[in-house]
Amino acid sequence: MLTNRRTITIEWGDCDPAGVVYYPRYFSYFNACTDALFEHGGFPREVRESKYQIIGAPLVAIRAQFIAPLHYGETAVIESCMTEFRVSSFQVQHKVYKGKELAVEAFETRVWAVRSAADPKKMEGRPIPPEVIKRFSEP
Amino acid sequence: MLTNRRTITIEWGDCDPAGVVYYPRYFSYFNACTDALFEHGGFPREVRESKYQIIGAPLVAIRAQFIAPLHYGETAVIESCMTEFRVSSFQVQHKVYKGKELAVEAFETRVWAVRSAADPKKMEGRPIPPEVIKRFSEP
Amino acid sequence: MLTNRRTITIEWGDCDPAGVVYYPRYFSYFNACTDALFEHGGFPREVRESKYQIIGAPLVAIRAQFIAPLHYGETAVIESCMTEFRVSSFQVQHKVYKGKELAVEAFETRVWAVRSAADPKKMEGRPIPPEVIKRFSEP
Amino acid sequence: MLTNRRTITIEWGDCDPAGVVYYPRYFSYFNACTDALFEHGGFPREVRESKYQIIGAPLVAIRAQFIAPLHYGETAVIESCMTEFRVSSFQVQHKVYKGKELAVEAFETRVWAVRSAADPKKMEGRPIPPEVIKRFSEP
Repeated sequence: MLTNRRTITIEWGDCDPAGVVYYPRYFSYFNACTDALFEHGGFPREVRESKYQIIGAPLVAIRAQFIAPLHYGETAVIESCMTEFRVSSFQVQHKVYKGKELAVEAFETRVWAVRSAADPKKMEGRPIPPEVIKRFSEP
Repeated sequence: MLTNRRTITIEWGDCDPAGVVYYPRYFSYFNACTDALFEHGGFPREVRESKYQIIGAPLVAIRAQFIAPLHYGETAVIESCMTEFRVSSFQVQHKVYKGKELAVEAFETRVWAVRSAADPKKMEGRPIPPEVIKRFSEP
Repeated sequence: MLTNRRTITIEWGDCDPAGVVYYPRYFSYFNACTDALFEHGGFPREVRESKYQIIGAPLVAIRAQFIAPLHYGETAVIESCMTEFRVSSFQVQHKVYKGKELAVEAFETRVWAVRSAADPKKMEGRPIPPEVIKRFSEP
Repeated sequence: MLTNRRTITIEWGDCDPAGVVYYPRYFSYFNACTDALFEHGGFPREVRESKYQIIGAPLVAIRAQFIAPLHYGETAVIESCMTEFRVSSFQVQHKVYKGKELAVEAFETRVWAVRSAADPKKMEGRPIPPEVIKRFSEP
């Protein structure tokens, strides 16, 4: 699968009184990494919006495992790729590596969504275009 | 001046590895306290929007003094009031008390702003209505 | 199970440009709600520390489902309880209700951990005391 | 003065419902930029700690002006330098540029602090070493 890699350095403000990353911060990293993966594949938010009327990729589910803590000042690499496609939803996997050690692994389930015609405050899933699936399935 | 009081309890995720409130968090408290002050005075966001076309109170300046740290689990009271009115801007003072001790003091300068007719992505200051000034100047 | 209820109001700073809660924020709510559940049951952090040498309840896994978005200014209730006990780990369930509608549901897996004698920078699981299990299993 | 430059890209989660950076986020950027400035000058946190017993640079005051908003997806450059030295405190200036336009300017006042011998929970200011002042005053 097409994989995006982002290097992060753990900042003081990312850490809690135990001196390790406060876990909700990981989800901020992941949210930004999913954006970066779309960009890396040639589908940044503005393209998805103008070409497909996609107004975001709302999250419907997430699961994560925290295997080893990250400390202030440490550097880690987050590898992100899409691991599954359904009709209108897809799964993004994020793996956080501290050197060769897997520290955190997460799976987001997101929807390929347009604004509802009936109620513009709501969103509706749409079939993911084949070229999007093809692009992110590339080795 | 009309004063709003809010009690906060310092949560684990508000604190940094030194075990004290990570200072950007204070500004999240203050932003919410300014909202609460407007509500307390009878001008919640929806009223300001429907009655005055006000689309927010964008911050143009802030200054703060950090006198004593707050630790995880401690309780504090934030007192907020408007201390100054100019034509289209106003100043909000926030004082954070730990018991009787003043821990943090901040002054926000905000604008009474409408959406620009020329460019809806921009905002323009408008004279603050006299009833708003009167209400928040009450003893 | 012993259940703690906390009412939250969605603040401006909790929301993203779509006007709904930015999902990592939910995990900050949940972290604080787990703390509050322990307190509600009579085991606040300082008791766990002084009586059991417990230095926290590190998260090892989480999963969540996002069913309906919460918007700026809305009020919600978070119900938290412990739904499962293993030897040294336990599961906390958090349900976020918007009126009667379930908006978010999450399950945290946490460890009952002491500081490692061999390496004080590490943590080690310990059997959860029977009185803790009993207390949080109460109807 | 020795200046550190950091490029940031505004992420979805940095923005509020108005689609612009939620202002407390700027202070997270600034906190990290002060750390980066110390590193850039050859005084990362571990050096300050091991060589000078410095346990941080607690913030005592901040002031900021918000001149132009930053939007989701925009790139900005933060220039940070030390603009003033007193006996045991110093001032850090941060300027956020959107292209050539100054978007935000802030001044932090921080203390060169050691752990108090009398009460290890407290901090005490210490004279800033001449080599530190010299290094950050370099053109």
